[in-house]
Amino acid sequence: MKKIINDPYQVVEETIGGILKAYPYHLRMAKDSPRALVRADAPVKGKVGICTGGGSGHIPVFLGYVGPGLLDGVSVGNVFSSPGADDMLAATKEVNGGAGVLYIFGNYSGDVMNFEMAAEMAGMEDIKVAMSIVKDDVVSAPRSEKDRRRGVAGLFFAYKLAGAKADTKASLEEVKATADRVIEKTCSIGVALSPCTIPAAGKATFTIADDEMEVGMGIHGEPGLERTKMKKADEIADIMSKKVIEDLPFKSGDEVAVLINGLGATPPEELFILNNRIHDNLVAGGLGVYKTFVGEYATSMEMAGASLTLLRLNREFKALLDAPAFSPFLLQWRR
Amino acid sequence: MKKIINDPYQVVEETIGGILKAYPYHLRMAKDSPRALVRADAPVKGKVGICTGGGSGHIPVFLGYVGPGLLDGVSVGNVFSSPGADDMLAATKEVNGGAGVLYIFGNYSGDVMNFEMAAEMAGMEDIKVAMSIVKDDVVSAPRSEKDRRRGVAGLFFAYKLAGAKADTKASLEEVKATADRVIEKTCSIGVALSPCTIPAAGKATFTIADDEMEVGMGIHGEPGLERTKMKKADEIADIMSKKVIEDLPFKSGDEVAVLINGLGATPPEELFILNNRIHDNLVAGGLGVYKTFVGEYATSMEMAGASLTLLRLNREFKALLDAPAFSPFLLQWRR
Repeated sequence: MKKIINDPYQVVEETIGGILKAYPYHLRMAKDSPRALVRADAPVKGKVGICTGGGSGHIPVFLGYVGPGLLDGVSVGNVFSSPGADDMLAATKEVNGGAGVLYIFGNYSGDVMNFEMAAEMAGMEDIKVAMSIVKDDVVSAPRSEKDRRRGVAGLFFAYKLAGAKADTKASLEEVKATADRVIEKTCSIGVALSPCTIPAAGKATFTIADDEMEVGMGIHGEPGLERTKMKKADEIADIMSKKVIEDLPFKSGDEVAVLINGLGATPPEELFILNNRIHDNLVAGGLGVYKTFVGEYATSMEMAGASLTLLRLNREFKALLDAPAFSPFLLQWRR
Repeated sequence: MKKIINDPYQVVEETIGGILKAYPYHLRMAKDSPRALVRADAPVKGKVGICTGGGSGHIPVFLGYVGPGLLDGVSVGNVFSSPGADDMLAATKEVNGGAGVLYIFGNYSGDVMNFEMAAEMAGMEDIKVAMSIVKDDVVSAPRSEKDRRRGVAGLFFAYKLAGAKADTKASLEEVKATADRVIEKTCSIGVALSPCTIPAAGKATFTIADDEMEVGMGIHGEPGLERTKMKKADEIADIMSKKVIEDLPFKSGDEVAVLINGLGATPPEELFILNNRIHDNLVAGGLGVYKTFVGEYATSMEMAGASLTLLRLNREFKALLDAPAFSPFLLQWRR
């Protein structure tokens, strides 16, 4: 295991320590949990507070999306493990500006259970809480069983658009409705080329041959559609675009936002090579590409691979996508 | 070689293709070279144009720093190889808004030779050109032989501050003087954990054992200070901060900007763990940390490792650092 770490059991604490030292004007630790961070200026009075959370090891998911125009609070667990309901509650209490709190998170059983528990506990403290669960991975279950689908990089669009909606001082019901509509129109697929290692486990999450890849693998190494010989970028792009376009389905005339996400070790050059073909496929399918994001928006430590996410846009979604937002993890010079 | 590519000899063309499809409102190809990109609105009249360039394989260096408040044009060569003088000239001609053009690039012999040739050719077309060469890698030569030092992630600060200076409509001489002063106050050191593979070569740039790291290695695998057994994050942080602080030297009372840069495969979590210790070392040394950047700002494809860069600040530098800037590679939602 070749990692720049100290004690494998202190990875989360030291990561959070490094984050707070890097961005002291942007984030602070919640009073009741060292695993929960909130905007330095939380709570924003009269605005719906938005919290997320989940296992560590996916930066900028989850810690990187807190900021103006985005989220208000976040809690993280150990690497690839859910945070506790107490940690979630600690963030919830500090981001509640009187308009209630929305939880946006990925569809993993531990996270669902703990966020439900946190919502109950918040209810006992008279904080109104709603939940929007992201389920964008088209490979993880058929569309007819959408509620079993995992949440992956599509979190990004849910965060961005719900964050912009909350900034308009919309009600909790309205912000949740926006997040749910975004989630409904978001589809993703990933491919993995190499595994990653959970520091405390010390060995790779799965094995894969030097000439193999896995289409549809989840961000924790969950099994995908098929394991095949390594393919060319254009073939990978074709598989990804076909699978995602078919799913919603996206139709000729739709306008979409595109996210080509790197899982960790894959160089940006390769992500752009994927986009070179994916963009052509989308245009050939009659889709209008409104905006493209290329980079590391949801990672799995040093895993090599990439994912494609499409969001079907409408006028409301475009305005929310374009609204100002800031996080030092992604966005600089809005100081 | 496990890479998401098609033809290894088309990697640069397809990367550029993917970039132009992702950011069509932001960048365009220069008329005279498919290896040169400029701001979509180039030239900006009356503003000094700034160009950079170098080998491919380092995104966001070089292609990612073109944009308002940053650079105006860029040319790239094959992976880890200098672009040609013709490519550089193609960008130069299109970014010249009448106030001349500044070249900012790293200190590599091929780049120096070709940029000098491009400057001569531009001169024959009555375009005034100046050059600022970035030499921040403290390991690559002793300070007494600073002109032999390589340019690494410190490019980032030279780009940002010179870009902001050019935005004030300062003269070519003034923008160059700012860039040179920034370069003089910028020091970097890197550590490498694993090699990368040039697609057309098909094999790793160097070999390193599973339990080894190299302190001071360059971004193309140039030899560093020493190869040692893998160390803990805090030990690595101590070596890096000591070496960089001693070099300028940075003195108690100095304010600095800090860049913790990932070389490609190293997860953001590990960069923050480095910052957790580096920040403490800087504060213990009496330095004031004005602003910290953590992420992938200068990469070597899938190389694992990290670098530390410090820039000594003064009032002018702080204002230039904080000035607005935008590139979709780093900075979103300034549409």
